[in-house]
Amino acid sequence: MQGTITRITVHDVRFPTSRQLDGSDAMNQAPDYSAAYALVETDRGDGLVGHGMTFTIGRGNEICVKAIESLAPLVLGERVATVLTDMGAIARRLAGDSQLRWVGPEKGVIHLATAAVVNALWDLRAKIEGKPLWKLLADLAPAEILRLIDFRHITDALTHDEALAILEHQAATRSGREAEMRAQGYPAYTTSAGWLGYDDAKLRRLCREGVAGGWTHFKQKVGGSLEDDLRRARIIREEIGPERRLMMDANQVWEVEQAIIHMRRLAEFRPWWIEEPLSPDDILGHAAVAKALRPLGIGVATGEHCQNRVMFKQFLQSGAIDFCQIDACRLGGVNEVIAVLLMAAKFGVPVCPHAGGVGLCELVQHLSIFDYIAVSGSLDNRVLEYVDHLHEHFVDPVVIRAGRYMPPASPGYSAALKPQSLADHVFPTGAAWRQRG
Amino acid sequence: MQGTITRITVHDVRFPTSRQLDGSDAMNQAPDYSAAYALVETDRGDGLVGHGMTFTIGRGNEICVKAIESLAPLVLGERVATVLTDMGAIARRLAGDSQLRWVGPEKGVIHLATAAVVNALWDLRAKIEGKPLWKLLADLAPAEILRLIDFRHITDALTHDEALAILEHQAATRSGREAEMRAQGYPAYTTSAGWLGYDDAKLRRLCREGVAGGWTHFKQKVGGSLEDDLRRARIIREEIGPERRLMMDANQVWEVEQAIIHMRRLAEFRPWWIEEPLSPDDILGHAAVAKALRPLGIGVATGEHCQNRVMFKQFLQSGAIDFCQIDACRLGGVNEVIAVLLMAAKFGVPVCPHAGGVGLCELVQHLSIFDYIAVSGSLDNRVLEYVDHLHEHFVDPVVIRAGRYMPPASPGYSAALKPQSLADHVFPTGAAWRQRG
Repeated sequence: MQGTITRITVHDVRFPTSRQLDGSDAMNQAPDYSAAYALVETDRGDGLVGHGMTFTIGRGNEICVKAIESLAPLVLGERVATVLTDMGAIARRLAGDSQLRWVGPEKGVIHLATAAVVNALWDLRAKIEGKPLWKLLADLAPAEILRLIDFRHITDALTHDEALAILEHQAATRSGREAEMRAQGYPAYTTSAGWLGYDDAKLRRLCREGVAGGWTHFKQKVGGSLEDDLRRARIIREEIGPERRLMMDANQVWEVEQAIIHMRRLAEFRPWWIEEPLSPDDILGHAAVAKALRPLGIGVATGEHCQNRVMFKQFLQSGAIDFCQIDACRLGGVNEVIAVLLMAAKFGVPVCPHAGGVGLCELVQHLSIFDYIAVSGSLDNRVLEYVDHLHEHFVDPVVIRAGRYMPPASPGYSAALKPQSLADHVFPTGAAWRQRG
Repeated sequence: MQGTITRITVHDVRFPTSRQLDGSDAMNQAPDYSAAYALVETDRGDGLVGHGMTFTIGRGNEICVKAIESLAPLVLGERVATVLTDMGAIARRLAGDSQLRWVGPEKGVIHLATAAVVNALWDLRAKIEGKPLWKLLADLAPAEILRLIDFRHITDALTHDEALAILEHQAATRSGREAEMRAQGYPAYTTSAGWLGYDDAKLRRLCREGVAGGWTHFKQKVGGSLEDDLRRARIIREEIGPERRLMMDANQVWEVEQAIIHMRRLAEFRPWWIEEPLSPDDILGHAAVAKALRPLGIGVATGEHCQNRVMFKQFLQSGAIDFCQIDACRLGGVNEVIAVLLMAAKFGVPVCPHAGGVGLCELVQHLSIFDYIAVSGSLDNRVLEYVDHLHEHFVDPVVIRAGRYMPPASPGYSAALKPQSLADHVFPTGAAWRQRG
């Protein structure tokens, strides 16, 4: 791999989604889906550019842009080969800069920015190798995968040898699962129907359309008034019938006791999981809710705001989660996601990634497909979130067939926005903001 | 309170401390003590300016500056009376903006920035009321103090009624403790001797000077090689004798088992506490270390990187900490600190704040003095960190007498930098950086 990393440009990209209340929930009333978006260029002369992003919901995106600019000097001027052939080292350098880590460490803005840079480097590597990211990862030997991981602060839950054993256990049978993915895709569920900002008629219509489209799992936003939550759950159950699965998502608005009380009432509609019932930082609270709801057959899911592998470690150690919802941009990029996939496999907890927003579906499909092929080896109780927003802006958008994500075929991490979409949505000067702002 | 908030200016202030290895430890090898520094101005015509800061160690300070600029519109243009007479509401608004909270929530850069703004508003209020902050707080009725607190996500550990009972229990005897503070000050300990970057001769000399200066508690940085840690502990014990207290601080570098193994060896020198043995996010890990070290008489201390009240809640609930080390700028300002002081009081854990850096001593003395007068009512096992760096740059620097912080007398939160110090240390254009950079 010849060449040098010569340029990193960062863009503040925002979509005015708050105008339609797409994505509205009990905590996030009016999001403008946004990306702090990084382009990594080299002097290789092949025209390949690494595209990476972190996801936000509007204000605050400019802070992530600033943080990516602060991380860029750690990568700029480095040899492409040095960086891309030891992605474990560069991920640790980005997360571990002795001054920058103070403003985290490994959490919040600086970690969101780290994800954008790490993800852009993976996109670049996958393009240079001519493979979609999931395939690049699924072709790595177990020992190579281990070198990607920062085991610091998680060895009490997952040792190097345990991780190696998990990967080696699945290695011989990878090719069968890869063929299965290529033929059938990875199972998905839809959140498109249940946003809090939609009225009952729209909710009912979207559920009906979802059933017709082959969806088997539906998610409802809860956490407003209990009466509203009950009424909307009834509508969804009426439309999806008794067999399809209903998930509920409270987006962090409850206290521990309140979560238990509300879910005991909502249990009538047999939710499969309750997602983000509490503060995303409340490991012990989630453990208490999980214990209370287990006899009712309701699982606890969280992770889209789980800041790093140390927090996921504890959610797993304490039995606080029945479903592990990694996010491709909240964790510090591909490397840290793999650490969490391995811990989840060890603890026997299915990974059902967070997606939606802008670009998250495009990214996480690679991670779930890799998880199935090389780490978990199972599809039991696993579904990947899908939301039908904003895919038209991507060069290589997700392909959904009969409620399943079909594996991406193009080289890279599917993060590239179409040039016109990028230009139109630069905030605040792009056409999308000038015309309507 | 008349007037409007008309202007918020933000400065990137940095001190080139890395040149002397002041503040060096196992994780933070070469910090440049820095502040993202906010000035809040009004049209009241009284010339009073609210000074607030968050502390960082160099690179990354510019990201906090950007985040303060992003928060400023939530305060700008508001009536002074509206903001300052309901500080609970403004603190919740700053921490809870429905878009900005995505890049936290309540952690990392956005929360550090929130602290700077909240602290500046408290400084302004204290100046308008003509009192040092500790006195302003200590004069509030219990019900007024409760209105400052965001109980969201902590009610399973501390209810409104429990908090009220704690405050009312201490209310009648406040004046005696206030008089005691004015006469004798709040007990401190020094970290000035034990930085990892100092050689053995300097360590020994500084310990000897510390003993001569009346200090009774000394802190040693550990977490390099065990042999170095043992040798340095022996030097300190030789100098401070058997009676004075020795604390150790690993600054997050250990794994759980490693922390236990190293501290079993270092137990020979009878450390009073081990500080930050692990990742600051590892509640369950700290609980395991605390359990293992309790039979040896070694306590666990952490908190300077503890991101918010939800994390402190769990450290307290799980018995993971014997000492609660709040930070005036890591938590979201005065309001959230008070929530943690109340939880610590309920769980019977002494609060020994983190200080040092630049400005942290100036700030936290107000919080500890308030804690003693109105919340804990006890000095048992309580000491406030002191480091003798950079006080000369403050208008109202800390006053230490015989190893104790003497209560500040000037109105405000003691955060004001001298105008010349501020001008000289603006990064990268100030004289301190132009001359030597």
